[in-house]
Order: sequence, then structure tokens, then C-alpha cells
Amino acid sequence: MKVNGKNYRTVWMEGKEVCLIDQTLLPFEFSIYRSQNYKETCHAIKTMMVRGAGAIGAAAGYAMAQASMEAPEKNCSGFISAARYEIQHTRPTAQNLFYATERVYEAAFISRTLAMEEAENIANEDAEASRKIGQYGNTLIKDGFRILTHCNAGWLAFVDYGTALSPIYAAHKAKKKIQVYVDETRPRGQGARLTAWELKNEGVRHKIVPDNAGAYLLSQCDVNMVIVGADRIAANGDVANKIGTFEKAIIAKEFNIPFYVAAPTSTIDVNCSTGKKIPIEQRDMNEVLYQTGMDKKNKLHEILVCSPGSKAINPAFDVTPAKYITGIITEKGIIHADEKSIFNLMNNK
Amino acid sequence: MKVNGKNYRTVWMEGKEVCLIDQTLLPFEFSIYRSQNYKETCHAIKTMMVRGAGAIGAAAGYAMAQASMEAPEKNCSGFISAARYEIQHTRPTAQNLFYATERVYEAAFISRTLAMEEAENIANEDAEASRKIGQYGNTLIKDGFRILTHCNAGWLAFVDYGTALSPIYAAHKAKKKIQVYVDETRPRGQGARLTAWELKNEGVRHKIVPDNAGAYLLSQCDVNMVIVGADRIAANGDVANKIGTFEKAIIAKEFNIPFYVAAPTSTIDVNCSTGKKIPIEQRDMNEVLYQTGMDKKNKLHEILVCSPGSKAINPAFDVTPAKYITGIITEKGIIHADEKSIFNLMNNK
Repeated sequence: MKVNGKNYRTVWMEGKEVCLIDQTLLPFEFSIYRSQNYKETCHAIKTMMVRGAGAIGAAAGYAMAQASMEAPEKNCSGFISAARYEIQHTRPTAQNLFYATERVYEAAFISRTLAMEEAENIANEDAEASRKIGQYGNTLIKDGFRILTHCNAGWLAFVDYGTALSPIYAAHKAKKKIQVYVDETRPRGQGARLTAWELKNEGVRHKIVPDNAGAYLLSQCDVNMVIVGADRIAANGDVANKIGTFEKAIIAKEFNIPFYVAAPTSTIDVNCSTGKKIPIEQRDMNEVLYQTGMDKKNKLHEILVCSPGSKAINPAFDVTPAKYITGIITEKGIIHADEKSIFNLMNNK
Repeated sequence: MKVNGKNYRTVWMEGKEVCLIDQTLLPFEFSIYRSQNYKETCHAIKTMMVRGAGAIGAAAGYAMAQASMEAPEKNCSGFISAARYEIQHTRPTAQNLFYATERVYEAAFISRTLAMEEAENIANEDAEASRKIGQYGNTLIKDGFRILTHCNAGWLAFVDYGTALSPIYAAHKAKKKIQVYVDETRPRGQGARLTAWELKNEGVRHKIVPDNAGAYLLSQCDVNMVIVGADRIAANGDVANKIGTFEKAIIAKEFNIPFYVAAPTSTIDVNCSTGKKIPIEQRDMNEVLYQTGMDKKNKLHEILVCSPGSKAINPAFDVTPAKYITGIITEKGIIHADEKSIFNLMNNK
């Protein structure tokens, strides 16, 4: 997708270097980080220079490919196994990370060339799944639609296109006049910071919405549909996603506004029977109490935005039960959020 | 109520001085502003050193009393009329401002002493109404309750006690073990900044909650009731309050959790038939895009927290239809949010 008019992927490889957009600097600075070896790529994943399920997976695959190139002739397999362990311990949650690492690890035992190819395949498959999600999702979007989205499920969270934003980009490319309402998505502000930044770069008309203004906005009949991403989808169609998603789903139902989840089939965890089994990560309360941003002299500050001494809760995700979800947009088509539809999708029936 | 263990009202008079807690400095600095004349008091209202319907009303009454003392022997009535005009043009919305100014204005034509007494009466009546709301509201709170509140309807918004927080203070004083969940209330953060500050000073157990975590919290069965304040209540029981209130009301209904509004009868606008007639103030989008807070060296900064160049919407209030409201807690008792109950309450039937 475009940054200042030039096309980029979130992460890619040039020779032995893994290149990635440093997301810790966005939206205030656009900079490419070039990792020289697998350890540096691990560091980039750990420090969230690259974030988002698909992007993490691709970076992990590339890291594994780097490791296969770095492996000494002697003890080659020991080196590769150690690297695999290290890569898989960078972040705890994203399924894609384990999936990608395993695939490239297996390939690395055959040849370095195959490891490189496999890493490239993973990135391409991710981008292609996102592109297809855009095509299917676009069929739901009419000219003139106003669409609400939460958090960032854009191309920055994947290799390219994104999930929730991919149908929006496809509609925009098809010259449909759309407007996107972007939830700011406190506490980390991925909507206000990343989604708004993506949409601006693609020239998509958008406005940032305080998370509190959802019911007001939907009650004004000013929103035609809601599209969000997913961190994990259970076998019964329950969806874990960024905190606040469940709240928007309830409100969408109250006002009879379609609520769609966009995600590749790799996000579906068939071993997880219901959303109740998905553990919710409780993050550091300082993410709520403090906020980082840029002053008028372009200097970054971290400031306390709450009353000193008070504590906060900080659940990172919530689970939206399937009954609130109008449909799931995948790279294989749009399905209902229920056990049978998911089973059929995953078994190509 | 208490600040560092000492009792304060939000606004009071000492001789010819109007004293008020400078709320523009909270929660980072506690400072008393001493206004020497009515013009300085007008400035304090205008710049939001004092904010909240009840507190603004009391400050306006005191300002009118100051004006009566400052009036020269010659052209006394002209001076007082000019002052009244000036005071009533400090802020556009709060009904209490006009009500208080009128009452003291009438008294000022009889004597300065009566003007002073009337201003004092208004402040005392406001505090007394809030205290009674606390007593009625406390009957709803059981030992061990966990209560969610939105924005700041505490004593800082009135002369003393507050509305939504008054039942909480009464329950705490009655030694009930309660815990308050405080919505941070973006964009201005009155929950995270003012409510949390009040509760800390009163020693009430509390936690700040990202606005997005409402549905998560309520779905965990971790909240027994929701109490909020009101900016205006229509004759049919619809309630205008801080943006986000409507969203919490919908969610509370979804999880069958009681949703109460606490407000003095002076907040009820019998001339406003339904909430649809209450105009919603659209405020400057910079309140969403920028945020102010304190760095580690205790220095205040205003920082951009969104992607540069993107725009935001910023509705200040929303209207919660009566059907979502379990009851309204007033100084005259707890009533249902419907036309007949409100009519009976206002006509002492």
C-alpha cells in the first residue's frame, strides 16, 4: 500500500536483510528498519517495531530464513533449532508466528534456498489472503457508505492490504465514495494513530471518533456498517479482538447495523470450541495512565493523563459472541459466524 | 468534601472574595483561586476554573452578590443590570447559571445583605440537594457492590457531595465496602482526572477503566450498578449527559445491570418534551487530537496523540432515551424515568 505515494509492504527481504516499517515511530515518523540478522529481527518483533498477526508471522518466517543463512557448516541443525526457539519466544499470542516459524524451519533442513522461498511464500500468501478479503468484502459496500472500524486491522498489521481495511481499500479503488469513521481505540490509540495514517496515505476520506461517541454516531443513522479485524476466532464463531470491539458489536445490534469481522482462515482456531476459552491478556496499567505524543516542536513526550496515584485496569482484548456478528469475511468467502459454517469453510465443503 | 484530609466546598465566599478550587490545574495541582470582584469571577467561569452545573450556578450567584457590593451609590441599578448581563454570558448551557443570577439579582434590588444571603442560600441548597441524593442513592447500594460511573458528577461539579458520586460517598461513610470503576471519559478525561482524584481524596477504592472496556467489564458480572449524572433531563425522562453515557446505558441493559441517573430536580427541563429536542454541542476537534498531561519532571505538555492531518468528530454529549434508565435519583426521592413520574415529582404529587 502507499506511503507518500510510493508502494510498500509492512515487511520484506532484500538479500540477507529483513526490512520493516518501524511502527513504534508511526504516525509521527516513517522509517525503515533494516535487520542484519535473525537476532535483530527477533528484537524488532519483541519491541513491536512490527506488530499485527500477519506481519509478525511474515517477520518470523524471514527471521527463520536469516537464521538458515547464518548457520555455520558445523552444528548447522543445532543453530537452526536454537534460532527457532528464540523466534518463537519473542511474543506469546500470535498464532501466525508459530505457524510461519515451523514452516521455514522444516524447509531449512532441506536447503537455504528452500527456507528463503518458504519465507517468501508465507509473506505472499498473507498478502494474497488479505487482497481476497478485500474483494469479497467490497461486495458488501455500496457507493456512499459510511463505515465504522475499530483498532487497526489495516495493511500495517499484515504484509499488505490488511483485513478490516482491505474491503475499504478495494471499494475506494473501485471509485465508490465512502467515508470511514475510525475509533481512536484507547488505550493505545491504534485507530487514531495507525488506521488514520493508513487511510490518509491512501486518500480515503475518514474521521477519528472518540470511542465514547459510538452510540451517538450509530443512533444518528450515520453509519451503514461496522468492519473489524480479529485476533482469534473460535470454532463456534466467537471473536477475540481489540478491547472495545464487543461494545461496538452490542451497539451495532441495538441499531440494526451490520457488524462484520474480516480475517484470514489462519485466524480461526478450530481447537478452541468457544470464545470463553480464549484467554484475555491483561496488560500494564501504565498504557492507560500514560500517553505518548508529539508537542508543537515535533518532540515526543510521555505524559501522565490520569489522576496521580490511581490505578487502572487494562484488558487488551474482549470476546464478541457469535450472535452479534453479521458475517465473517475470509479469503475463501463470506460466511455466517456459526459452528457449521466454520466447519464447512475449514474443510472446504 | 476532603482534599488532603481537609474539608472543602468547590466554591465559597470570604468577605468580598469568591474562593474556588481551580479545576484547570487538577488533578496535578490543588490551588484556590481568590476572585476580588465579579469580573474576576466571570473570568473564572468562562475559563472553566469552575465547571459543572451546580458549581457554576453557585459561582454565578456569588458573582452577582459581589456586583451588588461593588455597585456605586449613583447608578446602582444600571451597574447591577450590566453585571447580570455579563455573568449570564459567561457560559451558554448550564441552566443553574441563569437561575442563580436571577435570584440574586432580584435580592440585590432590596439590599446588599439580602443579595449576599441569597447567594449563600443557593450554594447551601445545591449542597443540600446533593447530600439528599446521596442518602436516597445509598439505599440502592449493598455492601460489596462494584459500581461503574462515567465522567465527573462528583462534588467538584457541584458545591459539595456531587450527584452520581454522592450515593457512593454516603455508602462509603456507612462503612459499606464498595469499589468504583471510573470510566476515563475521553476526550477530556473527567473520569480519569477528576472522579479518580475525588475518590482518592475520600479514600474510596477505585480503578480507572478505559472507555472501551465497558462491555468486557459488565460481561464479567463484575459490576452491580451504573450511576451517572445528567446535564439536562427532558420531561419524558430522556437524559442528556457526557458523550459515552448512552453507550454504557445500552450495555447495562444488555447485561441486565441497573442504570441510574443522579441529578437534582433543577436539572429537569419540563419545557423540553423529549431528548430529541436537546441540542448536542459539537466541540473543537483539537480536544480529541491533543491531550494534556504531566511528564516525569512534573512539567505539563500538550501533545498530539493522533495521526497528523486527520480530523475528528467531538460531540460533547449524547442523549440516553428513558427506556434504558432504571431510575432517576433526585433530592426528593428516586423515580422512574417517565413522563408521569417526572410530572408528579415536579408538582409535588
